[in-house]
Amino acid sequence: MTQFCESFALDFTENRAYCRPVIAPAGAAHPKLRGMQVNYDDIFARAIDRLHEEGRYRVFIDILRNKGAFPNARCFAGHNGPKPITVWCSNDYLAMGQHPKVIAAMEEALHDVGAGSGGTRNIGGNTHYHIDLEAELADLHGKEGALLFTSGYISNEATLGTLGKLLPNCIIYSDELNHASMIAGIRNSGCEKRVWRHNDLAHLEELLAADDPDAAKLIAFEGVYSMDGDVAPIHAICDLADKYNALTYCDEVHAVGMYGPRGGGITERDEAAHRVTIIEGTLGKAFGVMGGYIAADKNIVDVIRSYAPGFIFTTSLSPVLVAGVLASVRHLKGSSEERDAQQAAAAYLKQCFRDAGLPVMDSVTHIVPLMVGDPVRAKKISDILLAEYGVYVQPINFPTVPRGTERLRFTPGPAHDEAMMRELTQALVEIWGRLELEFKIAA
Amino acid sequence: MTQFCESFALDFTENRAYCRPVIAPAGAAHPKLRGMQVNYDDIFARAIDRLHEEGRYRVFIDILRNKGAFPNARCFAGHNGPKPITVWCSNDYLAMGQHPKVIAAMEEALHDVGAGSGGTRNIGGNTHYHIDLEAELADLHGKEGALLFTSGYISNEATLGTLGKLLPNCIIYSDELNHASMIAGIRNSGCEKRVWRHNDLAHLEELLAADDPDAAKLIAFEGVYSMDGDVAPIHAICDLADKYNALTYCDEVHAVGMYGPRGGGITERDEAAHRVTIIEGTLGKAFGVMGGYIAADKNIVDVIRSYAPGFIFTTSLSPVLVAGVLASVRHLKGSSEERDAQQAAAAYLKQCFRDAGLPVMDSVTHIVPLMVGDPVRAKKISDILLAEYGVYVQPINFPTVPRGTERLRFTPGPAHDEAMMRELTQALVEIWGRLELEFKIAA
Repeated sequence: MTQFCESFALDFTENRAYCRPVIAPAGAAHPKLRGMQVNYDDIFARAIDRLHEEGRYRVFIDILRNKGAFPNARCFAGHNGPKPITVWCSNDYLAMGQHPKVIAAMEEALHDVGAGSGGTRNIGGNTHYHIDLEAELADLHGKEGALLFTSGYISNEATLGTLGKLLPNCIIYSDELNHASMIAGIRNSGCEKRVWRHNDLAHLEELLAADDPDAAKLIAFEGVYSMDGDVAPIHAICDLADKYNALTYCDEVHAVGMYGPRGGGITERDEAAHRVTIIEGTLGKAFGVMGGYIAADKNIVDVIRSYAPGFIFTTSLSPVLVAGVLASVRHLKGSSEERDAQQAAAAYLKQCFRDAGLPVMDSVTHIVPLMVGDPVRAKKISDILLAEYGVYVQPINFPTVPRGTERLRFTPGPAHDEAMMRELTQALVEIWGRLELEFKIAA
Repeated sequence: MTQFCESFALDFTENRAYCRPVIAPAGAAHPKLRGMQVNYDDIFARAIDRLHEEGRYRVFIDILRNKGAFPNARCFAGHNGPKPITVWCSNDYLAMGQHPKVIAAMEEALHDVGAGSGGTRNIGGNTHYHIDLEAELADLHGKEGALLFTSGYISNEATLGTLGKLLPNCIIYSDELNHASMIAGIRNSGCEKRVWRHNDLAHLEELLAADDPDAAKLIAFEGVYSMDGDVAPIHAICDLADKYNALTYCDEVHAVGMYGPRGGGITERDEAAHRVTIIEGTLGKAFGVMGGYIAADKNIVDVIRSYAPGFIFTTSLSPVLVAGVLASVRHLKGSSEERDAQQAAAAYLKQCFRDAGLPVMDSVTHIVPLMVGDPVRAKKISDILLAEYGVYVQPINFPTVPRGTERLRFTPGPAHDEAMMRELTQALVEIWGRLELEFKIAA
């Protein structure tokens, strides 16, 4: 059991630190396969038991956010009806999910064209909203075209999986902290893969130099890494791509809407968008709605549109969502107010945590991670915050982050004010003391 | 080029009929790889050229449906502003996308909780709507639990891919007409796969009997096959599953909402739901909105929830969509009016086509396919219908159907009246004569 679970868990990450010794001897048959019929119930039950044993069985918190009063929400846990809480871990980073322009656009579309698209993009599900949004996103990234997907996950999976099939004998170079959806796409492409140490340019170059100079190559990385809050050295990666004739693929899901003068992401902020072959983004985080996309030159968009099963064979995004995203992207192209307020909030919260001696991790972005280093403790802190302080922050555990680096991840935004952040810090200090956790001496 | 395109196109189907001889000799290197740098632009351009040469380059029609007046829509092709059209190929089969209860529920959710969920199910994106809908869908299928996905595509891909990894040495038996998303899941599971001839129980049994009786087994099939309109012999498949100790997985995306007294699909109509291990469905066709799901026993739902990357690592469905689906599922559980009207419309249209000598294919469901057998002609008929008659029906070509079986696929529903169907038939008869296509003598 351990063997296949471990190797399966490894699927979620490139990071070597996630590896653990295999307990069952390699090649050992599953015990249930030794001369008796498979007991399916038992296999499934044991897969669940294992999560409980490791303290990483996930219980989803049951909430509804209060539109117009973000980050406030009500929580349905317990028995006395919904209780008020404050959400500190939403990826609706700029609170655009409650922006009046977004709500109005969605309401209008709902009444004009109805609830769903009714088909795939090719068969009845290609609305005028989809076409307008693709043009808007292409413009956002200075690319010839863009292509919508039903999620960021599927945009990564479908694009990387398809590119790898279209480019004969392609080798894909993947940062070890790349997201599970990129890893899925790379694996499904069937390409050879090289994993480079996180943001380590020397290691990337070493790998590129060791391969056949005539082989097709693709370097895949993220603009902002969502669990640590650091950023990629995009120009330097593109320099290597130029030197070794490689394509580049940058996942900007934790950056679009939030960085660059128009919200084009780290690629825009660093004036590197034109150097990156394919930029991938989400419509479900800073843009506040749902869906994913890529932006690239016309031919690349056209091949993905024409060959990717995950794009072709699926009902397109509801026009109601697309209308909302259109309003959101257009607003954030013209307004930096939300971005500035988010950066100010993140800076203030990091300072509060540092001043209090809480182990805030180094982050150069809007993400404020607090290291705990143990899944049981991380859950305990989160449970106390929710039950006693009405604070909702989800513990982040394996396989989302490597074992031993379990953490709390705060995402303050324009809707979190300074009083909230001071109260949060006081609560954490009290819990840190109660659980006898280590304080960090401020630098 | 031909070689990798062909093998890539094969990815979309289990059907042997899709195979074509490989032109390039096996193992031949791509010409661009012989001692010169890869020319990426050239590779992408040639992939697109090939689609043009085969007459299967897809141009998406740009439309907006008119809520309250389905199946009417406006089309943005051409230069004189939007033109009125009638949509005959929507998978919003029951026009639930404009149902007042669905619209009202979505509007209420939009104003109560905002545009998006703001996170994955585990991190801030688990709303009370999601929990309610999962309970409603579990009840619909008489199962202990259900699990929502962002699309039917990802529900198939994630569930089959994950099951195949959790069950050691599992063999998956796949009907040759299974959907691309099931094929993707089976491939990504890494399991051994056996493809059985469409609905051929003797062939399925032959394959089951030939394998190790102690191996884990899963039989994957669809309730309604969407391109031919035929149905699976579910009880007979379950008999084989019992005999050979296999799990069963039934994709009901073209059946949920439409068959069975409460819209539970063919599995409900045939009183077989309790015999099928996992039922998969969509929220984007008869339910009129967007999303996908599985229903199964508690432990299976829990393992997929806990282990499937395509479920874990993605922003959850917008609560606005979930609220709409809740209203839609609840309505269709209690009302058979839409189902009855759809069946009446399909029967009438098939009769009109038969009476006129049009080559309507055998279909025992709401799907009315008209065989053309050539991609260029199918597109030509579709173009004339749109330009001259304001009729929108998308030609269906490879890889969605095998080459040589290109067709037009009509999906009449409760919003299409008899006068519309008579006019459509007259238009087709005129075009059939103009293009000198063969008429079929009515039986």
